[in-house]
Amino acid sequence: MAALIDWTLQEHGGRPDTAADRGNRFLIGNGYLGVRGTLDEDGKDALAAVNLAGLYDQVGDAWREPLNAPNPFWTQCRIDAGPLTCAGAVCHTQSLDFRHGIAARTTEWQVGAGRLRVESERFVSMASYHLSGSAYTVTALDAPCRLTLCCGIDGDVWDINGPHYVSLAFTQAGDTLACSAATAANALVAVQRRVSWPQQGAAPHTEAKRGWQQAAIALQAGQSLRVTSVNAIYTTNDTPAPAQAAAEALAQAAGYDALRADHCRAWEELWRQAEIEIDGDDDACRAINYSVYHLNSIAPPPGLPLSIPARGLSGQTYKGAVFWDTEMFMLDHFLYTRPGVARSLLCYRIETLPGALEKARRYGLQGAFYAWESQEGGRDACSDHNVTDVFTGRPMRTYFKDKQVHISAAVARAVLLYTQTTGDTTLLAQGGARVVAECARFYWSLLTRPNATGRLEIHDVIGPDEYHERVNNNAYTNRCALAVFDWLAQAAALLQQADPAAYAALCADAKLPALLAQTAQARGELYLPAPNAQGVIEQFDGYFTLEDTTPAALRTRLQDPREYWGGAYGVASETQVIKQADVVAMLALFEEDCTPAQLRANWLYYEPRTEHGSSLSACMYALLACRFGDAARAYPFFLQSATAELRGGGKQWAGLVYIGGTHPAAAGGAWKVLAEGFAGLRCTPDGPRLHPCLPPGWQRLSFHFFCRGQRYHACVTPQGAELTPA
Amino acid sequence: MAALIDWTLQEHGGRPDTAADRGNRFLIGNGYLGVRGTLDEDGKDALAAVNLAGLYDQVGDAWREPLNAPNPFWTQCRIDAGPLTCAGAVCHTQSLDFRHGIAARTTEWQVGAGRLRVESERFVSMASYHLSGSAYTVTALDAPCRLTLCCGIDGDVWDINGPHYVSLAFTQAGDTLACSAATAANALVAVQRRVSWPQQGAAPHTEAKRGWQQAAIALQAGQSLRVTSVNAIYTTNDTPAPAQAAAEALAQAAGYDALRADHCRAWEELWRQAEIEIDGDDDACRAINYSVYHLNSIAPPPGLPLSIPARGLSGQTYKGAVFWDTEMFMLDHFLYTRPGVARSLLCYRIETLPGALEKARRYGLQGAFYAWESQEGGRDACSDHNVTDVFTGRPMRTYFKDKQVHISAAVARAVLLYTQTTGDTTLLAQGGARVVAECARFYWSLLTRPNATGRLEIHDVIGPDEYHERVNNNAYTNRCALAVFDWLAQAAALLQQADPAAYAALCADAKLPALLAQTAQARGELYLPAPNAQGVIEQFDGYFTLEDTTPAALRTRLQDPREYWGGAYGVASETQVIKQADVVAMLALFEEDCTPAQLRANWLYYEPRTEHGSSLSACMYALLACRFGDAARAYPFFLQSATAELRGGGKQWAGLVYIGGTHPAAAGGAWKVLAEGFAGLRCTPDGPRLHPCLPPGWQRLSFHFFCRGQRYHACVTPQGAELTPA
Repeated sequence: MAALIDWTLQEHGGRPDTAADRGNRFLIGNGYLGVRGTLDEDGKDALAAVNLAGLYDQVGDAWREPLNAPNPFWTQCRIDAGPLTCAGAVCHTQSLDFRHGIAARTTEWQVGAGRLRVESERFVSMASYHLSGSAYTVTALDAPCRLTLCCGIDGDVWDINGPHYVSLAFTQAGDTLACSAATAANALVAVQRRVSWPQQGAAPHTEAKRGWQQAAIALQAGQSLRVTSVNAIYTTNDTPAPAQAAAEALAQAAGYDALRADHCRAWEELWRQAEIEIDGDDDACRAINYSVYHLNSIAPPPGLPLSIPARGLSGQTYKGAVFWDTEMFMLDHFLYTRPGVARSLLCYRIETLPGALEKARRYGLQGAFYAWESQEGGRDACSDHNVTDVFTGRPMRTYFKDKQVHISAAVARAVLLYTQTTGDTTLLAQGGARVVAECARFYWSLLTRPNATGRLEIHDVIGPDEYHERVNNNAYTNRCALAVFDWLAQAAALLQQADPAAYAALCADAKLPALLAQTAQARGELYLPAPNAQGVIEQFDGYFTLEDTTPAALRTRLQDPREYWGGAYGVASETQVIKQADVVAMLALFEEDCTPAQLRANWLYYEPRTEHGSSLSACMYALLACRFGDAARAYPFFLQSATAELRGGGKQWAGLVYIGGTHPAAAGGAWKVLAEGFAGLRCTPDGPRLHPCLPPGWQRLSFHFFCRGQRYHACVTPQGAELTPA
Repeated sequence: MAALIDWTLQEHGGRPDTAADRGNRFLIGNGYLGVRGTLDEDGKDALAAVNLAGLYDQVGDAWREPLNAPNPFWTQCRIDAGPLTCAGAVCHTQSLDFRHGIAARTTEWQVGAGRLRVESERFVSMASYHLSGSAYTVTALDAPCRLTLCCGIDGDVWDINGPHYVSLAFTQAGDTLACSAATAANALVAVQRRVSWPQQGAAPHTEAKRGWQQAAIALQAGQSLRVTSVNAIYTTNDTPAPAQAAAEALAQAAGYDALRADHCRAWEELWRQAEIEIDGDDDACRAINYSVYHLNSIAPPPGLPLSIPARGLSGQTYKGAVFWDTEMFMLDHFLYTRPGVARSLLCYRIETLPGALEKARRYGLQGAFYAWESQEGGRDACSDHNVTDVFTGRPMRTYFKDKQVHISAAVARAVLLYTQTTGDTTLLAQGGARVVAECARFYWSLLTRPNATGRLEIHDVIGPDEYHERVNNNAYTNRCALAVFDWLAQAAALLQQADPAAYAALCADAKLPALLAQTAQARGELYLPAPNAQGVIEQFDGYFTLEDTTPAALRTRLQDPREYWGGAYGVASETQVIKQADVVAMLALFEEDCTPAQLRANWLYYEPRTEHGSSLSACMYALLACRFGDAARAYPFFLQSATAELRGGGKQWAGLVYIGGTHPAAAGGAWKVLAEGFAGLRCTPDGPRLHPCLPPGWQRLSFHFFCRGQRYHACVTPQGAELTPA
């Protein structure tokens, strides 16, 4: 049963200045593709996009980015005065049924003596991921109206670093339009749209970048006309002959309404696992379920070698690449609600291990150095220059790719977490243990022993707080390295028990015994910054000597609002102001390292110094506050994380580079706070446990989860927690 | 006998836009103070300065810098229309007799119906360093003239980061004016001027920042009036009661002409050792002797605990601080011509060892980390922000102080060089060996052993090429570290033989045996970048992967001519363009590491990539060219080094920071090229040797030098080299 919240997101008006935000907020997707929340008639100027997962292209020296498919949702209504657009509307409402992933709009225009209403909806099928559909209804409300309706495929797509298509071919046969788009690298994207006209006489039209069918329509007062479409999309990632596959899929596809029903059933099935109920806080309940919607609308469909990009499938920002966001922030939701998806995410890292090995080798290191911005094959999409100087317009050398070495720990951790949470040890044998081993080897090779201290240290890194570059002994990174050594030992023991043959093979292939000995030895000598007298851990060597100020004070020093705060000379660089949780993130992961009082001391020290300039920050603060039992402190950060999309806005610029899009890591982080913070869910060797810490005012928190193959129902009230197999 | 060159530097006109250059070019000094080459009537607007060696002050948070003394050369001639200035002159000539360190000027004005001529000269005594003198002659050339002559002390001094004086007291007694200036830190500067008026009636005047005597003078046509002054300057660096000391010195001082004669004799005595004769190249001969003049006019007087600042005594730029310039570029000239001065320079480093030990400790290192910009006591004057961003006006974090660790090698090398060249082993016992030991300990503590390579490396440094910050395994730095380990072994052996008791004390105090064992072990494991297939050594890890371009190409990328080329985002930072000799400097020091063909290959590789943005660069290129026998390539770089002042101009800005002044390291470097390059002078255990490599056209190069206490005359001709005890 659905929680008694409003599952519909609505926005009236359609202000042009918030159109980009709506594109994210009203996004629909099924993990194979994402369709931005724009309108039927929108084109690239409105940032309309049908963003394809895992298919990338590069034009010249520009950033390599995912392709946007030719848009089969393109539908235009024209009257004599020209096309009807939102700008000329009398009233306009855009909405999203986020329980079923159906985006809709209702818009009315004054046309001559009467009103004309357009109602449309669209979905991308959760039941059959190559398929999607749309319905478009036009009604003459109170006077006759003549209009022309165009239903087509728009190949003039929005690109950040395009154009990617060197050829676009449109063909039409009966009620079906087909578009084949090809890149210079011979990737093909086939988009086909079958339009169900209620009347004969729609005529085919083709321009260089658009093909469509067009019909002249005369409506009587009160009369409606409804056109539905079913679309199929295939690419050369799926098959060498995507056009043929699309044609076959479309030929076998049911009609719009049946397809829509399948789609809704798939979502309802999903909510059976994923829905969250909160009594006493409808806003939070709505926000967290909306976050769950976002996570699941971009989760890779079963069997596809995909992970989830940092900006989901909301476009080409962040290059459609997979960051640590996936393992650190999104994974847990899937682990506990859709373990198969979690497995897919990990298989992506197993499949991209060769890229990680190669990256380490290029840096003169050993083992697996995962890509900071991973595209297919583990290719690192992160450029040497991720920020543009606002004063000179010059690209600024950044070191995210080179120095943010903590990425490999996130991957190794995810393998262990998967194994422990699902109880499925087969992933270890199928490459998971090898991944952990190569990550451990990587950290071992990163260690250096300065004569000055005699201990093992890690120098010249960037921690989660990206504003301080090339620091030594970042507490987070060092602690993660140590943990990876431990995880390797655990993974080896698990594998040895579960699959002796696979263990033997790993010993031979990865020289496991020597690696275990090396890392066990290093573990004892690796330097970890200890809490100071106040219990606070220094973020990196020398951090406490930096200027002690606040984000608000720094904001007054900006000469340009788009200035990058980090880098060598950013306003934050020489201060203790940090972009996001760093020591706090470490403590949220390794709470057992400190006493609750120390956890609290670090929270209180770092929070006023944190800009929260990343959507990854708030949830870590919320989680840590739960760890020391302070749900009231956690709550606003939880809400900030859960409403990252609902609020809109967010950081749109890093220097002169546009970075807008959805924030699935914030959604995932919110889920973590809810389940692992407020409910205090832990998967222990003895089964799941709850250590609740409910926010003030919450009367009941209820959700389902899987642990080691068993489904459970968790119910937390101020009186206590109940955990029942379900 | 003086070489048959013109020992007088002259400049006509006195263009205001080149006044700052003239201040440097016509500088006079005696190591205790330097007087910029400005005119009698000039004040702070013209950058007039009497720059004091080794007496520093800080105002607020501004840079700490040396004091400029109240100016006892201030003399002004007034007519009814007001003070006579160069701007209103009919003709004007400024000159310097650089054989005798006498600066002069001749200026004529049209005054009423006739011409008035002022001729003046000044010197700071090389015979008695607290004393100085000036003579001022005014002549009515062809018509009677009435004028007022003012002779005083100008306390309104030029400061870069002042004002430094919190009180200025003027007193007058008889023909003597006295000024006592005090800083907030209670440093006192006493300046006294005894004026010899040829007539009675000069009246005392005092304003807040100036005291003077003033006389009304009526000259007949053809009549002259000459006023001479003798000055004494003492500070609290000399005595707790500097005013009394100045008064006594002045009471005992001879008259102007006798003092001048003593001064000239002292210079002639100096030239007996230092003069260089070149047959066949008068320009070079003049330039090198002018360079020798500069070096000696700033060399510390015997017994004073001073070294030579990087901008000599030409003002407050570079904070009056001592850089590696002294040991690496200036020292050799003194070693070979005035070993006592060389000893003073080294005693400065011995006396500032505690500061170097403390600096290392602050960085978590061991041993002696000498100041990048050393003020008294070894205090590091180098700020965290040495450059100002031209686009934002913000200070930019620079790492010269923190990362240019090669400074300590320059100091250790100088100790050994002194010992080997002079044969004087007493310096080792008197702290020199301890300095070498602590420098070796410093480099040992800098070493780190990355697991990835297993060898000892040095990470995160800046080499001589300052444009590339925080690099790993800078070839120059690593090679120097290794050399310091060797120098320690040599110094220990020398000391053990020369002074067993001192050796035993060092063993106990500095734990020498353990240090020798540690460094000998490290020596074998320290990584040194090897020449590649083309014989070229990579400047640091990854240098060869940087964009390969030229300084000229970078210049076209500048958006502001004052932009800093280095730092994180400078135009050079991501390219192979370097500021100055780096690998080439290393090879000039350690020629034995490579074959002549490899030396040449490195020269040919790096020269087109070198901006020569430092006056330290050219001489290293010239030296290395001599090392592989190519004097024709060396010659233009020699001349560039020798004419650094004569040419004027030079780099005046680093970002928005003024860095103008004299370039004694270029002068010293030129001498090194001449003696050690063109003549090929080496001081070997078997005595001096010449390996000449004369530039085309030079018929004879002749000079004197000391080696191990013996004076020699070197004479090099295209036919061969002759070395005779002299």
